[in-house]
Amino acid sequence: MGHGTNRIEDMSSPNNETAANARETVVEIHSVCLPPKKTTFQKLKKRFGDVFFPDDPLERFRNQTWRNKVILGLQSLFPIFTWGSQYDLKLFRSDVISGLTIASLAIPQGISYAKLANLPPIVGLYSSFVPPLIYSVLGSSKHLAVGPVSIASLVMGSMLSESVSPTQDSILYLKLAFTSTFFAGLFQASLGLLRLGFVIDFLSKAILVGFTAGAAVIVSLQQLKGLLGIVHFTGKMQFVPVMSSVINTRSESMRKPKLFWISAASPLASVVISTLLVYLIRDKTHAISFIGHLPKGLNPPSVNMLYFSAAHLALAIKTGIITGILSLTEGIAVGRTFASLKNYQVNGNKEMMAIGFMNMAGSCTSCYVTTGSFSRSAVNVNAGAKTAVSNIVMASAVLVTLLFLMPLFYYTPNLILAAIILTAVIGLIDYQAAYKLWKVDKFDFFTCMCSFFGVLFVSVPLGLAIAVGVSVIKILLHVTRPNTLEFGNIPGTQIYQSLKRYREASRVPGFLILAVESPLYFANCTYLQERILRWTREEENRIKENNDRNLKCIILDMTAVSSIDTSGIEAVFELRRRLEKQSLQLVLVNPVGSVMEKLHKSKIIESLGLSGLYLTVGEAVSDLSSTWKAHGQP
Amino acid sequence: MGHGTNRIEDMSSPNNETAANARETVVEIHSVCLPPKKTTFQKLKKRFGDVFFPDDPLERFRNQTWRNKVILGLQSLFPIFTWGSQYDLKLFRSDVISGLTIASLAIPQGISYAKLANLPPIVGLYSSFVPPLIYSVLGSSKHLAVGPVSIASLVMGSMLSESVSPTQDSILYLKLAFTSTFFAGLFQASLGLLRLGFVIDFLSKAILVGFTAGAAVIVSLQQLKGLLGIVHFTGKMQFVPVMSSVINTRSESMRKPKLFWISAASPLASVVISTLLVYLIRDKTHAISFIGHLPKGLNPPSVNMLYFSAAHLALAIKTGIITGILSLTEGIAVGRTFASLKNYQVNGNKEMMAIGFMNMAGSCTSCYVTTGSFSRSAVNVNAGAKTAVSNIVMASAVLVTLLFLMPLFYYTPNLILAAIILTAVIGLIDYQAAYKLWKVDKFDFFTCMCSFFGVLFVSVPLGLAIAVGVSVIKILLHVTRPNTLEFGNIPGTQIYQSLKRYREASRVPGFLILAVESPLYFANCTYLQERILRWTREEENRIKENNDRNLKCIILDMTAVSSIDTSGIEAVFELRRRLEKQSLQLVLVNPVGSVMEKLHKSKIIESLGLSGLYLTVGEAVSDLSSTWKAHGQP
Repeated sequence: MGHGTNRIEDMSSPNNETAANARETVVEIHSVCLPPKKTTFQKLKKRFGDVFFPDDPLERFRNQTWRNKVILGLQSLFPIFTWGSQYDLKLFRSDVISGLTIASLAIPQGISYAKLANLPPIVGLYSSFVPPLIYSVLGSSKHLAVGPVSIASLVMGSMLSESVSPTQDSILYLKLAFTSTFFAGLFQASLGLLRLGFVIDFLSKAILVGFTAGAAVIVSLQQLKGLLGIVHFTGKMQFVPVMSSVINTRSESMRKPKLFWISAASPLASVVISTLLVYLIRDKTHAISFIGHLPKGLNPPSVNMLYFSAAHLALAIKTGIITGILSLTEGIAVGRTFASLKNYQVNGNKEMMAIGFMNMAGSCTSCYVTTGSFSRSAVNVNAGAKTAVSNIVMASAVLVTLLFLMPLFYYTPNLILAAIILTAVIGLIDYQAAYKLWKVDKFDFFTCMCSFFGVLFVSVPLGLAIAVGVSVIKILLHVTRPNTLEFGNIPGTQIYQSLKRYREASRVPGFLILAVESPLYFANCTYLQERILRWTREEENRIKENNDRNLKCIILDMTAVSSIDTSGIEAVFELRRRLEKQSLQLVLVNPVGSVMEKLHKSKIIESLGLSGLYLTVGEAVSDLSSTWKAHGQP
Repeated sequence: MGHGTNRIEDMSSPNNETAANARETVVEIHSVCLPPKKTTFQKLKKRFGDVFFPDDPLERFRNQTWRNKVILGLQSLFPIFTWGSQYDLKLFRSDVISGLTIASLAIPQGISYAKLANLPPIVGLYSSFVPPLIYSVLGSSKHLAVGPVSIASLVMGSMLSESVSPTQDSILYLKLAFTSTFFAGLFQASLGLLRLGFVIDFLSKAILVGFTAGAAVIVSLQQLKGLLGIVHFTGKMQFVPVMSSVINTRSESMRKPKLFWISAASPLASVVISTLLVYLIRDKTHAISFIGHLPKGLNPPSVNMLYFSAAHLALAIKTGIITGILSLTEGIAVGRTFASLKNYQVNGNKEMMAIGFMNMAGSCTSCYVTTGSFSRSAVNVNAGAKTAVSNIVMASAVLVTLLFLMPLFYYTPNLILAAIILTAVIGLIDYQAAYKLWKVDKFDFFTCMCSFFGVLFVSVPLGLAIAVGVSVIKILLHVTRPNTLEFGNIPGTQIYQSLKRYREASRVPGFLILAVESPLYFANCTYLQERILRWTREEENRIKENNDRNLKCIILDMTAVSSIDTSGIEAVFELRRRLEKQSLQLVLVNPVGSVMEKLHKSKIIESLGLSGLYLTVGEAVSDLSSTWKAHGQP
């Protein structure tokens, strides 16, 4: 440590003797240290590491042989190598069962969600074939069931159809869907590659609860339109209070894992039964619309459908980013949920790359946006899935369907697809979570409502933007108007705590002890300066009224001041100057490392003088009191 | 306090006896309190008060008679009533001297700055007459000298002339200037009325240093063009390294108050001398351009010039907001600087209203944007100004000039006006402040450079927006990637401090003590959870290597966690669950009031169990160690 440190460490030593003479508790005085010296480069490196590599991805590679490093590298690129070598028949049996179970869910859902995105039903099946295969090689979650999901389908459908009609311009619409999917994948993979995963943290749970509920209401209304045959239903997705009539059955079965097979089997069962019914009465009625002809065969390539011309590029990019971030958030959250349940780790950045590459590959093989679905992953876990092989089994089942079973869906009524969508999305309305937000944190509830009503009445991207904006403003407001607390001593201890909160805490005569609960930044330094001066005024008024001992010293407990900038430093300077004019001393207690360093660099430490800096409030109080006593002051 | 509080207060009492049996330091265990119960409305009211009324403006009105309340109300609306009654001849003498001094500065500067804004020179004089009169009645600063300033003039000039040519469309240009001034005033007054004054805090000193320097470079280059007679100089304001050749003389005299009269007198002296010279040689040369005819008479009304038609409204509003916020920032900063120097208070919100009304009135009387100028206020203080009457004296001097002396400026050469502008703006380049930013805070320096280069190479509003954006991202980054520190005990004390910073601090066997230095929000809860698990892994590796005692407990010091939201609470839950699976206990220490309240509401306190919450790290360590000992664990 440098020269400066020593000088500061020495500062308090002359005070030790004085303190020892004090009549009150004898407290040893400790010096406040500077943090170990670091160059700007070292600091930048650490900061950079904290921001981009918080998981220290190279940790495992240290002290390994070259051979091991190559194996570890392969394993981290393709997680399949991690578990592939230990894979056995027992695991395979579990995976086959769970894989077939989720396939029975994935096929009807695939067809329905594609309709939700205004795409041909077959695209939903294509999207349940290629992406799961890619994910099983690249993904780090063992339980994620990959395929189209309702939110991303809905968002893509509503954003694209605002500009291009899916019925009149169906080829252009399809091209834009694939192009958006490509951009979604590119965006997702870039977030992972650039290690900017924290971006999805800004979609907090509160936002997602509101957003999903809002989106679910929109979809429900759209599907009710189909279900009830109302033709002149407004297409612009506005809120009509019909929602309450629909009964929330599906979420019940999700909450009772033993009943999972109901939710797993019912979509396929209803498709089979309704198709049979329609087939039987096909000559009697023409009122029921059904899917009709679906092409047999594997995913056709769609690289030639990617459409980068200027006319609709902005729309494709915007849709890609919004669906990309939403599906990413869902995929990562689902992966994390089940990883935590089964006690393993998923790596956020790696998952982003896996989901991103899977969507980029999907966009070239006639798939639209896919991610890990919550409902299917839950079924997957409950059916006993052990590894990503269950995704491969599911993809194989879809393959068989694509190759041989497509004609069977000819008579599947559209009505049953609407019903599948409806039950899926209504389960997404998590009013209990919203109620819990209200109870614990009113502001989080407000954010949730912002995203709910924003999505419902404004638009999907703007609704999300409003909610994220509100969350960011909350952080800024917390920094702009931080709390300051008046501390008192808990008798018989060296503990100083909030006077308002601890009734046993009492003021120390002659001192005003304030704790600042925020970093000191340009955004709050004027406010804090004024607020501290107001605390001083109020304390002096109180003293006058009660004929207490005169105020002589303001102690600022800086424990919670986690950072400071040049404006903050100037505010401390200025505060000290203004307090001095009123013959009051300013004392700083326990500045954290980075704050201490900056205070030192700006020479404020020297200007505060010998007794301007202490390690604890207790030491400051006892040292200053004994100094005053030694000088014969009251 | 409610039922919940008592239960929590009781929690630690069974531990007291165990602790007393401990072989190590006997520490009394204190319970963690909930803050006093408040309804949502009370909390909202307090929060609202903190955000909008941090100065408690109604404080003075409490316990007053009705008559006093009326007087106090008048005084707070028109500060002139505060000092008006004590005004005497002695004060007046000081104010006359200082008023005449600043008038001698204001007249040439008014003409020059109007040219900077591409406005007729006479508008600069008009703007030095009406606004000072209004400010002297409404303003709360005694030393602010009001009039046109360089930055706002330059910004208005460059923003308006990008769309409208001041030479070809001079009437439209003038209309837009008055309309922008009106919007600037409206914006300023609204900020004050809505008590949103903290908005200007976001223009930190770092931003302003960079911005002013960038703007000064732009102006210098523009004026050098005029000065050197270069016609084909690029009009789009780009950086050419000619700046260094110009010598910074003016700022020297500002730093030595005794020499203030040089800076005060030199502009007028140079105008007088140069005008005389040009007058004498008027027949010999035609190469020198001079001002020419200026209309005599008072400010003509300009309400009819306010131009609210759609064509240029957006431009006028944008220019108004940018010049409004810049001039407001300058005015408030200058007012605060001199108030603090002379030890009185200026009220931010009241100043905003004063400056805002002054500009709205100005826009109706042929004035453009005005505010408190740093250079003239400094001269004002040095010349001995005592009250706002010095502004009235200055306005009277301008009045006399407008009525009788305008013909004298006929032969004033434009060259000398360019020279006045140059010396004024070059003094604004505060490279020493930039160097200090670099030394103390690299990020502030970066912000400063962003605003410097943004203004220079992009544009005035975008440059400012970039710099503010960067500052906000800094705050968000600080919250998104907060510091965590490993704490150790300073032997022989109950003090726990950073192991890295305090060499004497040592680890407590069996414990990992971590301090989180940030609120726990959606934006950082995933990161913190992973980071804490990584700390645990690293600690366990260290223990394995050194054969230390096994890790049994993670202590989270929450002192600096100033706030928490529902995502943060869930992260604590999840962290506890994951640590439990590794047979590790999670203990929270000293959560602040609002955090404690939310933890309580979300039932996490109950789930943490009896020994999951302590007031200090020391109490947690000694209580847990003695419990383990009582159970015969190592």
